[in-house]
This record gives sequence, C-alpha cells and structure tokens, in this order.
Amino acid sequence: MRIKIVLDYVGSAYSGWQRQPDMDTVQGRVEDAIFSLTGERTAVTGSGRTDAGVHALFQPAHFDTNATFPLDRFVTGLNHFLPPDIRVKSAEVADARFHAIKDATEKTYEYLMYRADAESAIHYGRAHRILPDTDIERMSAAAKLFVGKKDFAAFCASGSSAKTTVRTVKDAAISERNGFVIFSVTADGFLYNMVRIMVACLLAVGRGKMDEADIEKFIEGKDRTAFCELAPAGGLYLVDVKYGKA
Amino acid sequence: MRIKIVLDYVGSAYSGWQRQPDMDTVQGRVEDAIFSLTGERTAVTGSGRTDAGVHALFQPAHFDTNATFPLDRFVTGLNHFLPPDIRVKSAEVADARFHAIKDATEKTYEYLMYRADAESAIHYGRAHRILPDTDIERMSAAAKLFVGKKDFAAFCASGSSAKTTVRTVKDAAISERNGFVIFSVTADGFLYNMVRIMVACLLAVGRGKMDEADIEKFIEGKDRTAFCELAPAGGLYLVDVKYGKA
Repeated sequence: MRIKIVLDYVGSAYSGWQRQPDMDTVQGRVEDAIFSLTGERTAVTGSGRTDAGVHALFQPAHFDTNATFPLDRFVTGLNHFLPPDIRVKSAEVADARFHAIKDATEKTYEYLMYRADAESAIHYGRAHRILPDTDIERMSAAAKLFVGKKDFAAFCASGSSAKTTVRTVKDAAISERNGFVIFSVTADGFLYNMVRIMVACLLAVGRGKMDEADIEKFIEGKDRTAFCELAPAGGLYLVDVKYGKA
Repeated sequence: MRIKIVLDYVGSAYSGWQRQPDMDTVQGRVEDAIFSLTGERTAVTGSGRTDAGVHALFQPAHFDTNATFPLDRFVTGLNHFLPPDIRVKSAEVADARFHAIKDATEKTYEYLMYRADAESAIHYGRAHRILPDTDIERMSAAAKLFVGKKDFAAFCASGSSAKTTVRTVKDAAISERNGFVIFSVTADGFLYNMVRIMVACLLAVGRGKMDEADIEKFIEGKDRTAFCELAPAGGLYLVDVKYGKA
C-alpha cells in the first residue's frame, strides 16, 4: 500500500532532507520513525530535497508499507517517534503509481527577509536580515524577470543531476507580510539552489549592485559562475506542492 | 563604568536567564562573552530572570567594567563571542546607580498561541497550540480581570523569594496578530511564573472549564494550589521593560 504524507519541519537542526550516512537528515528521521512504527525498512520519497537549514511548511512524501493501521495512526504514530521539529500533518492512501517527485506539477517557495540594522536572535536561522534602506521596489520589479519558461542554467548550483535546466516560473513576486519582506516563487520545478540564487540576485538589485539588465544578461548567459552569490538557507521555506494538471 | 545593554534571545536552548552551575544559561553566556572581550569576570544583572525556554525580544541588563572601549565595541565585540540565538542590540553608559531590576518600573510580556488541530513543527518552542474552537472572546473578557493593583499570590509559583505578592497590572488583553492569538500583559513587576499561570487560567476559560467568577475566586483565594496548571514556556516573550517614572 502506498501512503502519501505531508510533513512540516524546521530544517535548522538537520543536514537537509536527503538521507546521508552519519548525518542527521529529515528523510532519515522519517524513515526511522516508520521503522519504529511498522518494523519495516522503507524508503520515503519527498517532493523535493530541501538543503540543510531550509524549512518546509508543506512537504509531501510517499512510501510503501504492508502495515494496515488506520490512516490517522500514521499521523499520531509517526509523530510519536519523530522529534517535535518534524511533524506529519496528514496521511492518505495514494495510488500505487503516485510519485511525490515525478508527479509534482507545481511548487512554491517563500524566502523571508527582515529589515534591521543588526542581526536579531529571534530570526536567527528563520529569516535573512537586509538593511533598512534596501530598495524593495527595485527588487519587486526585478523579480518579474524570472517569470516564464526559461533555461535557468545560471541558477543551478554545480552538483545538480538535472537532465534539463529549463523550468517554467509561473509567478515570482516580492511582498510584505507580518513585518517580513517575502520573495514568493512558483514553478513547475526548481533546480538545485535556484531560489537562493534568485534571492541573491534580487538582493544585489536592492543594494544597487545589479540592475534589471544585469539580471537579464545573467539569465541569458546561462553561466552560474558569472554571479556566485547564494542567499543563506535559513530564510527559505517550501510552502506548497501541487499534483495533477497544473 | 556601568554599562546598560539590551539583549534579545531565543530561550529554547538555554536553562533560563540565571547562571547556574553546570547549566547553559543566557546570563552565563553573556558573562562569558564579557570575559572573552574584556578579560574581566563581572556579574550581569538582567531586568528579570526568564525561565528555561522563555524568549526575550527586549531584555535590558547592566554590568560594571573597567574596559574603555567605544560603546559600539560592546555591541559588536559581545556579539562576536555570543551564539547567534543571543544578540546584544544596544549598549550605553548608565548612571553608576542604575540597576536593571530595581529601577524597572514597567514590564510587558506577550504569550503567543496559534489555533490548529495538530502541533506545527514551525511553531515548536515558539508558540503554544490551542484548539480552533477555543473561545477567544471569553478569554479576552477574562483577561481584563487581571488589571489593577492586586495581591497575585495565587499566580506565584512556589520557590519565589518575592517580598510581596502585590503587583499592579496596567494592561492585560488578548489580540490577534499575524495569525497568532496573543496575550499581552504590562505590570510594574511579575511574580515567578505569573504570566504562564494567567495564560493557563485564560485557556481554561477559553475551553469552558472556568468562567470569570472562577478567575475572580482564584485571585481572591490567593492559593496557587487551587489551580495548578501552567502554560508552556515556549510561547512566552519578554517584549519591553521601561525605566523611570511610569
């Protein structure tokens, strides 16, 4: 039986989603919790592999099990064995062909920033500080340049195994909410470090170090090494994943 | 020279403010940072002793030093030696008679709650979950009962060394902000666990387990053991401390 679960987690304490030997990862914790609950060693496939320090408010995943618990038992039982900074929000029986990565048609990330003259303890690892005089309107205008079906090769960190670097960004925008400046971006998929490279570009624009023409040139150049900055992981949140026809 | 600093911190990783042998505390960390910066072993006095897991957005403190650094060096230098979940926000030279506890005339705490059917990883240790059908209007009405000059003996955990349990609560209210339900309370001082006992009362009201008459009876009874609940530490934030004439 294939089960689809949705998780949320604070990534601060983990070496990212993906299980790695001798590392404390979210996937590893979830697989261990399934083993504790069912006695089965099974692989859990998440909709995407968030980096170390990246958070998820909505991370769908699937796994196969022979356990015949009632579904809510997968929620309460897994949460019993998971640490409190990783929670299973829901569980449902999925089609046996459902695949949490391959079937995802749309994902949304948000990147949280706060304006302050100095670092705040309370936002440490949760939001990225920007200087109060950062030009949010310029960032907002530049964010629109990411929208469309484009080759985002320049926004792909080395080490990626992506077959193609073409992605369709459906929406990319800067907004202000609850005291945060937020970059929201929705696409049919994301390359390794793509959002954090986008944010680094927007911050360069907000500080007057780049303009819209530079961003267009960077996209067209398809060369990651032309701009090597990367926004810190702690501001990034996977907030939504959609399946089915987009 | 007496220095007044203002700190913010996330209390999750610490055994509260007050230095204790073999415990990792905020006061201990700040005193260690001062030693690293100045070579001096000096006591730091905070405006109040937050419990383990309680946070501060604004915690004033004072200490004496013979170091003659420029003031901003106390900010940057201490932050260099402090962990990122404790930050010095400002430093100023204080009157030699200034005392961070004794001179405080008004303090404000906030207690953050979020409405959800299940625990959220993202709010773990930062806000307290309440059930969606909790009656916020009843809580809001009951909060007003705390306002005034009263003997809050019932709201004082055992182990307190307070000389008097009379305090003047200037304001106590429930509001909703940024998706949180927030209890804000301002008083001339607080007893040990006072805010967390208040919140426990309000939650009992919100769940229909107590009414306003029960709260009044509890206040008048001056007996902590008449209602032994305590809201979890992680939702509590020290948000403001005022000095001088109130």
